[in-house]
Amino acid sequence: MVTTATIFVGELFGTALLILFGGGVVAAHVLNKSKAKDTGWVLITFGWGFGVMAGAYFALPLSGGHLNPAVTLGLAASSGEWAPVPVYIVAQMLGAMIGAFLVWLVYLAQFKASDGPFLGIFSTEPEVRSPGLNLITEFVATAALLFLVVATGQNNELALSGVGVLIVAFTVVGIGMSLGGPTGYAINPARDLGPRIVHQLLPIKGKGTSDWGYSWVPVLGPLLGGLVGGALGAAVQNMAA
Amino acid sequence: MVTTATIFVGELFGTALLILFGGGVVAAHVLNKSKAKDTGWVLITFGWGFGVMAGAYFALPLSGGHLNPAVTLGLAASSGEWAPVPVYIVAQMLGAMIGAFLVWLVYLAQFKASDGPFLGIFSTEPEVRSPGLNLITEFVATAALLFLVVATGQNNELALSGVGVLIVAFTVVGIGMSLGGPTGYAINPARDLGPRIVHQLLPIKGKGTSDWGYSWVPVLGPLLGGLVGGALGAAVQNMAA
Amino acid sequence: MVTTATIFVGELFGTALLILFGGGVVAAHVLNKSKAKDTGWVLITFGWGFGVMAGAYFALPLSGGHLNPAVTLGLAASSGEWAPVPVYIVAQMLGAMIGAFLVWLVYLAQFKASDGPFLGIFSTEPEVRSPGLNLITEFVATAALLFLVVATGQNNELALSGVGVLIVAFTVVGIGMSLGGPTGYAINPARDLGPRIVHQLLPIKGKGTSDWGYSWVPVLGPLLGGLVGGALGAAVQNMAA
Amino acid sequence: MVTTATIFVGELFGTALLILFGGGVVAAHVLNKSKAKDTGWVLITFGWGFGVMAGAYFALPLSGGHLNPAVTLGLAASSGEWAPVPVYIVAQMLGAMIGAFLVWLVYLAQFKASDGPFLGIFSTEPEVRSPGLNLITEFVATAALLFLVVATGQNNELALSGVGVLIVAFTVVGIGMSLGGPTGYAINPARDLGPRIVHQLLPIKGKGTSDWGYSWVPVLGPLLGGLVGGALGAAVQNMAA
Repeated sequence: MVTTATIFVGELFGTALLILFGGGVVAAHVLNKSKAKDTGWVLITFGWGFGVMAGAYFALPLSGGHLNPAVTLGLAASSGEWAPVPVYIVAQMLGAMIGAFLVWLVYLAQFKASDGPFLGIFSTEPEVRSPGLNLITEFVATAALLFLVVATGQNNELALSGVGVLIVAFTVVGIGMSLGGPTGYAINPARDLGPRIVHQLLPIKGKGTSDWGYSWVPVLGPLLGGLVGGALGAAVQNMAA
Repeated sequence: MVTTATIFVGELFGTALLILFGGGVVAAHVLNKSKAKDTGWVLITFGWGFGVMAGAYFALPLSGGHLNPAVTLGLAASSGEWAPVPVYIVAQMLGAMIGAFLVWLVYLAQFKASDGPFLGIFSTEPEVRSPGLNLITEFVATAALLFLVVATGQNNELALSGVGVLIVAFTVVGIGMSLGGPTGYAINPARDLGPRIVHQLLPIKGKGTSDWGYSWVPVLGPLLGGLVGGALGAAVQNMAA
Repeated sequence: MVTTATIFVGELFGTALLILFGGGVVAAHVLNKSKAKDTGWVLITFGWGFGVMAGAYFALPLSGGHLNPAVTLGLAASSGEWAPVPVYIVAQMLGAMIGAFLVWLVYLAQFKASDGPFLGIFSTEPEVRSPGLNLITEFVATAALLFLVVATGQNNELALSGVGVLIVAFTVVGIGMSLGGPTGYAINPARDLGPRIVHQLLPIKGKGTSDWGYSWVPVLGPLLGGLVGGALGAAVQNMAA
Repeated sequence: MVTTATIFVGELFGTALLILFGGGVVAAHVLNKSKAKDTGWVLITFGWGFGVMAGAYFALPLSGGHLNPAVTLGLAASSGEWAPVPVYIVAQMLGAMIGAFLVWLVYLAQFKASDGPFLGIFSTEPEVRSPGLNLITEFVATAALLFLVVATGQNNELALSGVGVLIVAFTVVGIGMSLGGPTGYAINPARDLGPRIVHQLLPIKGKGTSDWGYSWVPVLGPLLGGLVGGALGAAVQNMAA
């Protein structure tokens, strides 16, 4: 049975797993004294995707496995059920922060052996800083994800069998491979904002700026993309029904 | 229920997703200021494959998830149902153009930071220009795909469960890895022609030629391959029934 | 219904698909003027694995999808049914030859642009030539495969759902990644011998020797490994029943 | 029916397969005269993951497919059934040793062509030697695995369909990609200790030290992580029930 408590636990631990894998794979790639140093974008996108898989597979029976405020809002907009939204988002933010903290713990010796800055292990940074274009990129990538999730009835818990989880996870791998080049594909406000707060708080030597000036882009872009993509997906789903 | 409207919507959005992922992953690999710059053929083939997966999983209940005129013709030739073919092909072409446009939008800052030519992000180009040999390559690759799809009853909607979609998607990854070396594996006339039109139309600085002289190869090769592979697959399927 | 005719067709086309993908991915990696030039072992192992997936998924309802004399012998030894073995092996050999011929056709322009020798695109070659050790490597790798296939009841057609095909395919990817380093993992006499004959016959400039002196290793090693691994797997399966 | 005998056989052969693939892929990457020489972390993590997949798929009906004392203890702690634990652990240790021996056999010519030290092919080594931090890394990585396995009811044999095996296998790939950078992710005492004993015993020229000073870390870290992660997962599972 899905209750407020199961939603909280599902989203908290599920998002923590997502960020533990996702932040971890970036740390594995960028830090010195890591066995995966400089492995590249195939590693990073599969690492994030398997984080989605693990977190969603875990959270599915508890909360539906959103792990992402853009998913929560996109589904709320299409279903009209807004009441549980705050619980989802609070749990996602806390979970993301726990995950980011664990990444730091796991890679503590590697952080010490590296020079920084380290923001990229926590939050996204654009390759070309252009808020308008960065916003468009995040908008399109998140809209594609929510369009697919809503249109294929992934909001229906039954549809999220293990195979459905694999398909969503590989979709996120694909979004990273295909649309992640410009901004590092936040496509999830909690994934970006939660770890950015942790980056701000943790006393890591040489960590550099938390870049709050950019922080609204990977929040607003995914939220808008989720709403529009979800609405479009809902329209298609109704048509097919 | 599959209607003309669901076919149109399924093929339109499904093919748009396919090209958004597929064109996107090439852009991610070739453009400057992309986090995936120069990652290589493993990235490109998985990116395209996950695009097939996302697009087909979405379009399956709406249109059967062809996303490719060669699939549509191959299935029509084996089933004898030709009436819906034009709707499929029009939607596939429009969808491919929308997808290519979105790739440009997502990578706008990267296009500006790169020198071109950019045709490879939109359409296929052979490594050795030899229309006859290029035609053979596209013919064999598409025939293999359609042979498999038709022979395993992927024209039966029920067969296309999530697992079937995964297998078709990984088959396309495999075709890219194994048969994509010479021509970049169009294996889909809409995938090549739609984005080529968009390349012609978009005002991208330094975009180079749209290479219309080669454009017939990735149209004719896949169409012929689809017809022959589909017919062979249908013969085998009848034998097994 | 499985008949002699469906066995022949299933194994013929299934093995042709396997070799088309498998030989193709090596060609993609080694030949000049290929978009996948020098991509590496991840590409090669996934390419072969997706060939197994495609070929086995196709051949499953027709012949059980062996595609490999070592599988056929391993299963015959555990079931006692020897009558259909010759049909399987003849079809596998012919199919492997067709696949190797198609690889040559697909990569014709690339063969012309490269210097050779080209045996590696057709058949396996050891990194260190030591027939005894090479035989052990092929023996262990094939025994592991057949042990798994027989013990998990993959000889039961029902067990070979799409998910079973995926697991077998990824097992072969894993064997390639983990055990393929010394000899290039033939693990299949038809996969090695059929294309070696085609290499001998085709008039490719600079193709080099067909290396018949080594050809018995990737035949005998897999056959012995398949028999021993299959027998061990059957013993375990009986215990579990 | 699961008996002491099936548990022993399942864990023995299953863990042998796991280490054959896992040790093999490291050998493939590090040894001279290997076709996969220097391929990198994507190869290594997928190779280990497919070893988990093969071993667990095999052992599932026989023993539940633990292959790891941390899994056995984590499940015992959550179920209260401690009686079969010794059989599991003895079989896992023996199986791991058999697997490590087979890796040496398969790569014998490559060992001879390389200079050593070779411990990394058998057991894990940290990039930065810091027992406390290394312990934390192994603890967190194993806790994440057991949390997921227990919380998603993977201790329920029915839940471990082929799809469940794929998800667990890709989870292990993800743990390797994301959390394996600092210590090489033992996450399994048998995986580390069994092959370390084999490294000590085998007469390999230039093999270097078996590094017993570090050996307690990849034993204690996974055991503690498994207990804590398993307990947490069990608490969540009870809540969801």
